[in-house]
Amino acid sequence: MEFMAPTITCAEILKEAVSDPSNGNHIASAMELYIMGLQKQLCEALAAIDGSQFKTDKWERPNNGGGGVTCVLQDGNVFEKAGVGVSVVHGTLSKNAIQQMKSRGKELFGDSVEFRALGISSVIHPKSPHVPTMHFNYRFFEIPEGDSKLWWFGGGSDLTPTYLHEGDATHFHTTLKAACDTHSAEYYPKFKKWCDEYFYIKHREESRGVGGIFFDDLDYIPINDAFSFVKSCGNAVIPSYIPLIKQHMDEKYTEEELEWKLLRRGRYVEFNLVLDRGTKFGLHTENARIESILMSLPLNARWEYMNEPGEREKVLLEVLKNPREWC
Amino acid sequence: MEFMAPTITCAEILKEAVSDPSNGNHIASAMELYIMGLQKQLCEALAAIDGSQFKTDKWERPNNGGGGVTCVLQDGNVFEKAGVGVSVVHGTLSKNAIQQMKSRGKELFGDSVEFRALGISSVIHPKSPHVPTMHFNYRFFEIPEGDSKLWWFGGGSDLTPTYLHEGDATHFHTTLKAACDTHSAEYYPKFKKWCDEYFYIKHREESRGVGGIFFDDLDYIPINDAFSFVKSCGNAVIPSYIPLIKQHMDEKYTEEELEWKLLRRGRYVEFNLVLDRGTKFGLHTENARIESILMSLPLNARWEYMNEPGEREKVLLEVLKNPREWC
Repeated sequence: MEFMAPTITCAEILKEAVSDPSNGNHIASAMELYIMGLQKQLCEALAAIDGSQFKTDKWERPNNGGGGVTCVLQDGNVFEKAGVGVSVVHGTLSKNAIQQMKSRGKELFGDSVEFRALGISSVIHPKSPHVPTMHFNYRFFEIPEGDSKLWWFGGGSDLTPTYLHEGDATHFHTTLKAACDTHSAEYYPKFKKWCDEYFYIKHREESRGVGGIFFDDLDYIPINDAFSFVKSCGNAVIPSYIPLIKQHMDEKYTEEELEWKLLRRGRYVEFNLVLDRGTKFGLHTENARIESILMSLPLNARWEYMNEPGEREKVLLEVLKNPREWC
Repeated sequence: MEFMAPTITCAEILKEAVSDPSNGNHIASAMELYIMGLQKQLCEALAAIDGSQFKTDKWERPNNGGGGVTCVLQDGNVFEKAGVGVSVVHGTLSKNAIQQMKSRGKELFGDSVEFRALGISSVIHPKSPHVPTMHFNYRFFEIPEGDSKLWWFGGGSDLTPTYLHEGDATHFHTTLKAACDTHSAEYYPKFKKWCDEYFYIKHREESRGVGGIFFDDLDYIPINDAFSFVKSCGNAVIPSYIPLIKQHMDEKYTEEELEWKLLRRGRYVEFNLVLDRGTKFGLHTENARIESILMSLPLNARWEYMNEPGEREKVLLEVLKNPREWC
């Protein structure tokens, strides 16, 4: 099979739209095929490493509002929880969403605004405290018709280690920078900074991890160029991350290291439930598929009162408090 | 020692204020002594059951803004994490807080409103899946001076079992109802309903637990009566909960039951981080003591993708979806 499940949009309609650049659904259709393909590639790469298979669920939104394909490998040999989800949804923006978008500078007219949103989202939590957690998300948002006609891309990719391996952070960032640089020398520095700012857990005064790239509202270059940039970022996911898994997955670890991992996973939960815009948006959406939204949470997490980190743990915390340049 | 730590307010000043009903600090001072005493009583009762001691931290807010006493027994024999915290703080309300209180009907004047807030807050997470988690919080809020002079009490107590033991829910509710009934026959039904509504996890379409009582803005009866009611509720904490611990703490449990406990603890985290007003207020407060705010989180929690509950687990879920009358 070409993908993990059949596409959300009918395959015939997709084929027609991608073959015709003048078709109003050309980019959305190409994006749907691209993210379905990336989902398949990544799931296959992870399943091959783990030696076990992803569970694939195809789901639909009520009232013909689109749907998605959620793939999760849980409690595997290498991965505690690896989720790769695609969603292709459409509907009418809530008043709240209209207001929020206006406050971000979007020119929207009227009370009823039709939208469609396509995206791929993934969080990989490995078992070993030596293999970092990785998250990425790339999405296309479109108001396809009427006075409010608009589109933009957003997304990013970031790394969350339990223990700092400087080489990992450098490899991850260097790979992302290379993907950015083929499009504009301005992207990596700008989106790296944005990532550090976005993934900051204010109440802990520390970053979630060692960052990566993050961007939103990418609508200021031609749509084909923006899509091409997003594909470069998506194509960088596997080369930026898979080598780090392979390098560390067989390293031995101790009970103390596992406990530190659980505490860091607790911080991941705090970020996702308290701060992450996508998660909060999902939790407040009627008829959302909650299992897909919360697949990003780790299998296990821990909160200790007044934990005293050791020397090696403090090395990570130092970097989380003072983000570094990695390339 | 009379309390777990010295009072936040100087003991001499407290003594003077409580001995003189015309003193402007009379109720606040009596409340401070009451919650410090309740903290001590509860910690002693729990420590005696567990066979290990609470760690007590006295902390101060910067700029002379009050402080608190946080007591936590972590990774004990019976309790995974038991926290009992007192805080006695004062300062100037943020613009945000002023707006929020106005939206609740409080008449506040001017941009600078001095407040003080005193409270006791506690979450007890036991190790055994047969002993329920219990939470309670009682607080006094006062705008002591100027045009905006106001006061109110708030609080509540609720029970969160991993497996449903109907007798536990009945005992817990009956004890709370008796405390309420000595003050007004209207309180228990009203505050029981409010509790069911407040501890509802909308995105899961289920309650956090089997409820209890919850109230806020209690300012519509004489202040001495309100304080007396809150003391009755506080005095009901030990008799409502300690017997449930003793009844179930020695019951055997299986690995499967422990896993279900971890999943339920995950839901507890979801409620506290996504919905709980007190936690959200704390996380967004400058200079808050984060370890005290998040002592309510369980030691361990788990999120499984697409968990399939068994028959006994479904019995609990049924009650969480359809709250019952327990007395």
